[in-house]
Amino acid sequence: MSRFFNPSLAGLDPYTPGEQPSGRKFIKLNTNEPPCPPSPLAIEYAKTEAARCNLYPPLDGGELRLKLAEHYGVSPEEVVVTNGSDEVLNFLFKAFCHKDSPAAFADITYGFYSVFVALNGVPFEEIPLRDGFKIAPEDYIGINKNIFIANPNAPTGLVLPLCDIERIAESNPNNIVVIDEAYIDFGGESALGLIKKYGNLVVVRTFSKSRALAGGRVGYAFARPEIISDIYRIIYSTNPYNLSRTDIAMALGALEDEAYTRALVGGIIEQRRRASEELKSLGFELTDSSANFIFAKPNGISAKELYERLKDRGILVRYFDRPRISDRLRITVGSEDEMTALISAAAEIMKGRDGK
Amino acid sequence: MSRFFNPSLAGLDPYTPGEQPSGRKFIKLNTNEPPCPPSPLAIEYAKTEAARCNLYPPLDGGELRLKLAEHYGVSPEEVVVTNGSDEVLNFLFKAFCHKDSPAAFADITYGFYSVFVALNGVPFEEIPLRDGFKIAPEDYIGINKNIFIANPNAPTGLVLPLCDIERIAESNPNNIVVIDEAYIDFGGESALGLIKKYGNLVVVRTFSKSRALAGGRVGYAFARPEIISDIYRIIYSTNPYNLSRTDIAMALGALEDEAYTRALVGGIIEQRRRASEELKSLGFELTDSSANFIFAKPNGISAKELYERLKDRGILVRYFDRPRISDRLRITVGSEDEMTALISAAAEIMKGRDGK
Repeated sequence: MSRFFNPSLAGLDPYTPGEQPSGRKFIKLNTNEPPCPPSPLAIEYAKTEAARCNLYPPLDGGELRLKLAEHYGVSPEEVVVTNGSDEVLNFLFKAFCHKDSPAAFADITYGFYSVFVALNGVPFEEIPLRDGFKIAPEDYIGINKNIFIANPNAPTGLVLPLCDIERIAESNPNNIVVIDEAYIDFGGESALGLIKKYGNLVVVRTFSKSRALAGGRVGYAFARPEIISDIYRIIYSTNPYNLSRTDIAMALGALEDEAYTRALVGGIIEQRRRASEELKSLGFELTDSSANFIFAKPNGISAKELYERLKDRGILVRYFDRPRISDRLRITVGSEDEMTALISAAAEIMKGRDGK
Repeated sequence: MSRFFNPSLAGLDPYTPGEQPSGRKFIKLNTNEPPCPPSPLAIEYAKTEAARCNLYPPLDGGELRLKLAEHYGVSPEEVVVTNGSDEVLNFLFKAFCHKDSPAAFADITYGFYSVFVALNGVPFEEIPLRDGFKIAPEDYIGINKNIFIANPNAPTGLVLPLCDIERIAESNPNNIVVIDEAYIDFGGESALGLIKKYGNLVVVRTFSKSRALAGGRVGYAFARPEIISDIYRIIYSTNPYNLSRTDIAMALGALEDEAYTRALVGGIIEQRRRASEELKSLGFELTDSSANFIFAKPNGISAKELYERLKDRGILVRYFDRPRISDRLRITVGSEDEMTALISAAAEIMKGRDGK
């Protein structure tokens, strides 16, 4: 830390992204990226748009904001487009949480929420998940806090039903309730249809997962126009040109190519089913994941050792060295070949037949 | 404003970007974009990289950070790569300015500095420019504030010599001194060579102007490793994947294609010289701009009326409705044809021979 650094940020403990190896070629099942390139339409649009990159991008995401509104059946004033969903999540903490309006989220959930409260100096409560990593709606009813729920939750993959989300939104009318639906296309029911009914509800989405654009950095969120307009106020005070032209173009292409997204999502769900069965038969204990990852507790070997031995064999999965989940691995659902390689490697390691 | 909005941000007055018209085709001389596409190499790299956008981008800008270090003769630990230079400017206010360490900048300079202090709740001083829009170094000597100087300054285009920057950096050893060099490639001397000598100096740059990538959203900054590491701490607590893959790829292409950048910059400087002469002969009063824009006071017509009548004719320039500069226009230096069109239109309007 330099001697100039703001002392009130001295305790900031940044988010730890999954490893992004640059040398050796790994089977990468550690950051929930889809195993196939973006839609050909996205690639085509990027190429065309690159030639126009001497000009600033349109503000508000331009056509992308309009197309998202049309696609999801809301008005453009109910949509905000951001540089990945992390950006809009940060701005939700910044715009709506403060000393008189704390935040609340599960103790085991997307790891960035706890960083955002530190970054923005926001008081917060971590609500422990119940047995089986379940979110108990009653823990969130009428708590008068701004609530952040990943649904499906990460890294558990578990889904909260819409009726519970309604009860939570209804019982905290003076706070926002944010449903982070990064993984919703792989399972669970979206809360998008509820934003007209609940003026405090915010639904956050991303192009990173089901639309294969993790490298394109485009997130978006839905809420009533007053909330969206507050978020734009932060954007215009932070980085008005938050999305590049090529990123907007790729997102437009991906959005238009619904058939591609459907095929991608269908393939992931099928591989999730197959890999889950095979891992169970190897003795893994699994949550009932609705996301594009599997949350698995190995049998007869520690999660940490299995993570390391898989890595030795060129397979990267995610190990979280933190209480309650250090006995599990989060394994991204990849292609059929990748999942076959993972399962074979795990089987060999766990049977003690690993050559090493 | 929604009823959930953080009351401490209620006074936030966002930055107003120049108009980005979407309907009618304008000659766009209002946002300092270069009049030609990015380097063909940048476009080619974007196309190739788009196909890999299912994967998250490399952290820290990956290869771009290394190539910038190599290109500018510093170590990678002395470079940070950001989503436009606005992002790094915001993080400099966030990381290093606070209640015990205020900010200071000119009253007439890049309009975002005053937004960033409001956004981050930072005390600040606006130091009036002297006669002729000049920065007087003595106003910044030993003031014990974090100093932000755009060099060349915007919208004046005036340059501060390096010897003055040295005096300012040396006399404020407990604060950072930020030199925002968005326009440096068009004139003036860079302070980059001083970062090893002054541990409090930060030099901010962008790919938007001289490298024709305003739509690609890539900025960067140089400083000693301790400061760069503090900035990365903020990045990892905000949006670790702040640059998309295609943006990194385009910046790499633009950086490699030095011949293209040189030709672009040379062309702009030549058009600036020619347009300045012709505008002067029309009675405009000009500052001695070292940037890719001209800051011009018309004669016999108000700046506001000239702005409006140029817009009627399909030519957009920038008019700032604020004290001290509301009698001037900031005119981006475009292509030869664009500048010819601007000069003809201005001549017609000012001679009262406008047909309207």
